[in-house]
Amino acid sequence: MASDALVPETSVLAVASHVVYGYVGNKIATIVMQSLGCDVAALNTVHFSNHTGYRQFKGTRATAQEISDLYQGLCQSNLTDFDVMLSGYAPSAAAVEAVGAIGLDLQQKAQKAPGSFFWVLDPVMGDQGRLYVNDDVVPAYKNIIRYADLILPNQFEAEVLSGIKITSLKTLAEAITAIHKTYSVPHIIITSVQLSKFTSETSSSPNSLTVIGSTTRSDGSPRLFRIDVPALDCYFSGTGDMFSALTVARLREAVFATGPDLRNVKSWVSPDEVAPTDLPLAKSTVKVLESMHSVLEKTLEARDAELRTTSSDSASVNEEEKRKQENLRQSKAAEVRLVRNARFLREPTASFQAQEWRKEDLPESLQ
Amino acid sequence: MASDALVPETSVLAVASHVVYGYVGNKIATIVMQSLGCDVAALNTVHFSNHTGYRQFKGTRATAQEISDLYQGLCQSNLTDFDVMLSGYAPSAAAVEAVGAIGLDLQQKAQKAPGSFFWVLDPVMGDQGRLYVNDDVVPAYKNIIRYADLILPNQFEAEVLSGIKITSLKTLAEAITAIHKTYSVPHIIITSVQLSKFTSETSSSPNSLTVIGSTTRSDGSPRLFRIDVPALDCYFSGTGDMFSALTVARLREAVFATGPDLRNVKSWVSPDEVAPTDLPLAKSTVKVLESMHSVLEKTLEARDAELRTTSSDSASVNEEEKRKQENLRQSKAAEVRLVRNARFLREPTASFQAQEWRKEDLPESLQ
Repeated sequence: MASDALVPETSVLAVASHVVYGYVGNKIATIVMQSLGCDVAALNTVHFSNHTGYRQFKGTRATAQEISDLYQGLCQSNLTDFDVMLSGYAPSAAAVEAVGAIGLDLQQKAQKAPGSFFWVLDPVMGDQGRLYVNDDVVPAYKNIIRYADLILPNQFEAEVLSGIKITSLKTLAEAITAIHKTYSVPHIIITSVQLSKFTSETSSSPNSLTVIGSTTRSDGSPRLFRIDVPALDCYFSGTGDMFSALTVARLREAVFATGPDLRNVKSWVSPDEVAPTDLPLAKSTVKVLESMHSVLEKTLEARDAELRTTSSDSASVNEEEKRKQENLRQSKAAEVRLVRNARFLREPTASFQAQEWRKEDLPESLQ
Repeated sequence: MASDALVPETSVLAVASHVVYGYVGNKIATIVMQSLGCDVAALNTVHFSNHTGYRQFKGTRATAQEISDLYQGLCQSNLTDFDVMLSGYAPSAAAVEAVGAIGLDLQQKAQKAPGSFFWVLDPVMGDQGRLYVNDDVVPAYKNIIRYADLILPNQFEAEVLSGIKITSLKTLAEAITAIHKTYSVPHIIITSVQLSKFTSETSSSPNSLTVIGSTTRSDGSPRLFRIDVPALDCYFSGTGDMFSALTVARLREAVFATGPDLRNVKSWVSPDEVAPTDLPLAKSTVKVLESMHSVLEKTLEARDAELRTTSSDSASVNEEEKRKQENLRQSKAAEVRLVRNARFLREPTASFQAQEWRKEDLPESLQ
């Protein structure tokens, strides 16, 4: 790999889960960011044998105190010169608060140099209409999001944060507008919206996913862009973490590419005249999705090949055990194939484009 | 990077320490092996903020029970199809025993397919004449080493394991012979011997380090080779872990390069007629040292540049605090610069050679 395939030097503090086997949380985020040239400090919020999609795992969760202690360990030895913090899964409301305190402290340390620190927050709470964290984690996230520069909720998490049920492009735009306003968060990406599920937008292909992003203008209004990508016919764990890790690397690269001005602006918010599809956030998200699609296509091929050569333990007689073994086999086969395909992160084979929203897809307040 | 710069597909279980910031233990081993194309499952024996060379850190140690539990988590979900295990630092005698039980279990699982599993063990106990683990860790290692395929002690650890004080090339050869015999361990590498400190071998340059390796013959005698490399004028933490991680990748590659036969032999022991310098262990160690030298040269440049642009906190008035701050500054500057130099792991710029030992450097029993 030539060094010019790497993003500008970036020191990242990544706070998320660790699994011994497989690729989710910090385990996937670390290799993704390192492959693009980022120096990653990994503070692990859990230490599990494998991801929870296997429906069984062993391991330990870090307490809020342990998370704070590790950060204090960095502080006392002057090891906090991070350009970006990426925070993901935290195993309790107290742990979310501890992570929030770290983000806030790093932000305060960087106060005299606007733009020198940027916090990407993935508010991991649930998916598909269901919380998979304790109820008290929701208010904990609502308290810390106001300090983040970019948040990456999925559709369900955006509903939880905005209080708006997303059933159409219009309600989606309303939810993003509400999140910008309520939490003063300058950048939002809503990862994987399935527009075909919206009854009013039947023209969308059921085989495509849409990613929606926005950077706020100075009046608080959103600058909305969308990117449609073909969906792959498999559920892969860890893709949210892969998305956020790629975003860290590619957004900083895109901001640096605009010249020296923007990177010295608090939260890297582009001037009002920059159109939605010209935003560094839009440009980086295109690259992120190209990399993801390329690696996931390779993963799908490898998964299919693995499933053809393995079979569930036929010794199991009872149906429940058979289903369990089959899920284990499917989960293992669907682990993201990152190591042998790292070059596709840097030089993806897919090619996508960001689009502005059509006026008729916006709520009246934004037209 | 072209995929042909990668080693054959290798699934590794790495059991060692994790640090949030910097590059030692699993933190460096993981990126090194991944950069060469290995799939790495990382079971972390400690979770510290930074390495102990900073002389202060915060964090937690895994108990033996936690280590065993994580491995049980892998077993119950059929996630133990590892080609290689790499074990490094464990924080207690009980933890060493737990790691030993993992190695033994993986070995037993692979019993029907000789050569399909290989255990590389770094018996981390001390350095420079001093133990830095509890006394009871020594017998714990002595008990598990007999199951390992390759061990990588430093000079002091080789003395502890062999009971032979190493003061010359002859006593070094005796120590290796004794370790082969006492523990039935087929491959040994003694990392960084400073021959110039041996009073009887004054011809060696004080600016060179020697790495000594051996693969046993069927009669138990050693096949000794040596590789001399220029020493760099700086102490870098994590180089032992970098060495062992590179060895995992490069040894398997060298064994595969000999054709299909050797890889199906228990412990990958070459036929007796293979000369010391033609051993896969010798060939891989040459590549390992070339990669290390290339990355450490780049690290030294970056360290010197960093030290020129930073200074210790001048606000400190007392001498002790000044020394402490200076050690922190030096430790941080000397962190291995791996991420931006990963290509030098794959395609090193340095070039070394393995040599056979001269007859007069061997003890009489081996001449």
